[in-house]
Amino acid sequence: MASEKGRIEAFSDGIFGIAATLLVFQIKIPPAGQNLAANLLKQWPSYFAFVLSFIFIGIMWVNHHRLFTLIRKADDGLLVINLLLLLGVTVVPFPTSVLAAHLATPNARTATFLYNGTYLVTAILFNILWHYILHRGLLDQDRNSDPIRNISRQYALGPILYLVCFTTTYYSVRLSLLLNTALAIFYTIPASRATYIRAR
Amino acid sequence: MASEKGRIEAFSDGIFGIAATLLVFQIKIPPAGQNLAANLLKQWPSYFAFVLSFIFIGIMWVNHHRLFTLIRKADDGLLVINLLLLLGVTVVPFPTSVLAAHLATPNARTATFLYNGTYLVTAILFNILWHYILHRGLLDQDRNSDPIRNISRQYALGPILYLVCFTTTYYSVRLSLLLNTALAIFYTIPASRATYIRAR
Amino acid sequence: MASEKGRIEAFSDGIFGIAATLLVFQIKIPPAGQNLAANLLKQWPSYFAFVLSFIFIGIMWVNHHRLFTLIRKADDGLLVINLLLLLGVTVVPFPTSVLAAHLATPNARTATFLYNGTYLVTAILFNILWHYILHRGLLDQDRNSDPIRNISRQYALGPILYLVCFTTTYYSVRLSLLLNTALAIFYTIPASRATYIRAR
Amino acid sequence: MASEKGRIEAFSDGIFGIAATLLVFQIKIPPAGQNLAANLLKQWPSYFAFVLSFIFIGIMWVNHHRLFTLIRKADDGLLVINLLLLLGVTVVPFPTSVLAAHLATPNARTATFLYNGTYLVTAILFNILWHYILHRGLLDQDRNSDPIRNISRQYALGPILYLVCFTTTYYSVRLSLLLNTALAIFYTIPASRATYIRAR
Repeated sequence: MASEKGRIEAFSDGIFGIAATLLVFQIKIPPAGQNLAANLLKQWPSYFAFVLSFIFIGIMWVNHHRLFTLIRKADDGLLVINLLLLLGVTVVPFPTSVLAAHLATPNARTATFLYNGTYLVTAILFNILWHYILHRGLLDQDRNSDPIRNISRQYALGPILYLVCFTTTYYSVRLSLLLNTALAIFYTIPASRATYIRAR
Repeated sequence: MASEKGRIEAFSDGIFGIAATLLVFQIKIPPAGQNLAANLLKQWPSYFAFVLSFIFIGIMWVNHHRLFTLIRKADDGLLVINLLLLLGVTVVPFPTSVLAAHLATPNARTATFLYNGTYLVTAILFNILWHYILHRGLLDQDRNSDPIRNISRQYALGPILYLVCFTTTYYSVRLSLLLNTALAIFYTIPASRATYIRAR
Repeated sequence: MASEKGRIEAFSDGIFGIAATLLVFQIKIPPAGQNLAANLLKQWPSYFAFVLSFIFIGIMWVNHHRLFTLIRKADDGLLVINLLLLLGVTVVPFPTSVLAAHLATPNARTATFLYNGTYLVTAILFNILWHYILHRGLLDQDRNSDPIRNISRQYALGPILYLVCFTTTYYSVRLSLLLNTALAIFYTIPASRATYIRAR
Repeated sequence: MASEKGRIEAFSDGIFGIAATLLVFQIKIPPAGQNLAANLLKQWPSYFAFVLSFIFIGIMWVNHHRLFTLIRKADDGLLVINLLLLLGVTVVPFPTSVLAAHLATPNARTATFLYNGTYLVTAILFNILWHYILHRGLLDQDRNSDPIRNISRQYALGPILYLVCFTTTYYSVRLSLLLNTALAIFYTIPASRATYIRAR
């Protein structure tokens, strides 16, 4: 069973790693015969979308990784919910490419809805996975312990934050993406993460 | 020998994971300058083919994973049959892309034949792998035990189900893909899988 | 040191697995609005090149895998030669795509030279890796033992076989690719491999 | 904690491996109907950029790998800095493709700046990671020991060497890429690496 857990982790790590690595391929190679520097700068939405999605996939990987250190054993349901979560992860390059291609066009709102919607669904799937684990007693510790309650609270925050980004898109694409950026920085700078992440 | 088994698993997991992650790249990025929402909706065959193939690859991975937990040791023949099975897995993005590109065209029938044909061949290769393992005594338990007989029965079901989907295509593409969808749901919803999968 | 060996294997497995999985992406998706079945059949050089290269990468992976089971420890030189070998492996999708695109054109000879040349270089790198291991005493057993001498003899066969395929291209592209196919079958069918591979 | 370190290594290895393998996909497949040999030769910038980047990713992987053998445990900050470093690694295929597409055009200087700039940033991130590890006492040995001081000195050399390549680009693209090539050979030929790498 331990080795089963290990193989789920290995398979998941593979998918997180490949999805993260493939993100860069949405950045177009400017054609020869034109001013390269100008063309490179014009592609800023691609770089923005790439870095944002890389950080979000990185955060998901860290969370997934932490979650599995707390699991005692895997069962069929966990396998299936984990596959659905990974489906969400492998989708990420698509809304990232759509955002990159449409951010500087009148379609920016639709692209941003799609972008935030994808992460919203993934954050919900993370909570479903976590509550399934709690419910089935797959943890290696008491589910009423303080660290576990902390994680439950922190996981519940994910969908709320992405829902805020999602709904903000309706009023302002710029503000929504600013919130996304703030979220990425918040998770990435160790100091700001300390209180949020410590318990895990 | 244990480590040899481990390395086959790691290599196989890599291929399953990459094939699953690359599926999303058949979804086209709608061009700028047109209505994005409408273009995104028009691409429904791509999303359908993506989700269906992701779930089928996920199921194959789960089956492969379970099968290897029962193996005591690997030999040359197993290595070769496993490679042929992995060849089938890496092919999946191709019929998936063909189905996505042709589902809403008069070529839908040919595309669906190709799609179901690929899974039919893979399901047959799974059975060849399983019977080779039984035949060569590579299991870590008695091949006449009840759980092993159950698996044999369940594996035999795979080619039959895909053959039904394949032949149904001749009469109705829609019905065939509906059967594929039912198959994916049947395997994915833990409750419905319980009796089928439990023994593994 | 054992873990160092393990990490080289993991990195190598990743590269073999990804290179093998990406091969399918050279197969073009026939455009909508034309007869799909006819277009799929017309692409036979892509399927041929895909299957051949998948089997050759599979064989290289098996050989790599076996070689590392005999190694006691890794050193800097082994790391570097292994990286060059992996460079050869990651190149494979390129000559494969070139062969697929040009096999049915007057460029078939050039494409076949490139194709066989790639494998020839890789087979030579395999021998360099093996003789480096022998020379530096990195084996976990006596280098003059019978199994080790057998492997040396078998490894030396690789460059010769690919050189034959390479030079045959000069006289007949068809014969050269027939030899390639024979080689792939020879390695894949366990019975025919038995005497060749057993000692490893 | 040991397993946490192991999973960071596995995830990182995956990203290094995938980034290295995807490099080959920037090499274009010459179209049918033209002289293949001539077209293949005309693409020399693609081969040059591919081999150079493959070796640089290989070197980064070796360094990363060595660094982790010295680490006793991982913490949140290390996880984040490592993710930023991996972001740098996944970016590599982009400047590589840009260099390949523009090396034989008047845009060569801009492309070479971008290329060397990417490696400069990555080399700086490596130093940040290393000094974070020293600072937080994550090593399994005394940070004032001779081998550790040697590594600090060697790591500090990386950004300097890439900065030299970067600034040289201003005066001569050709000289800059020659320096890059010298760097790749210096790291790849075991004899020349001996004094530099031994201490690790």
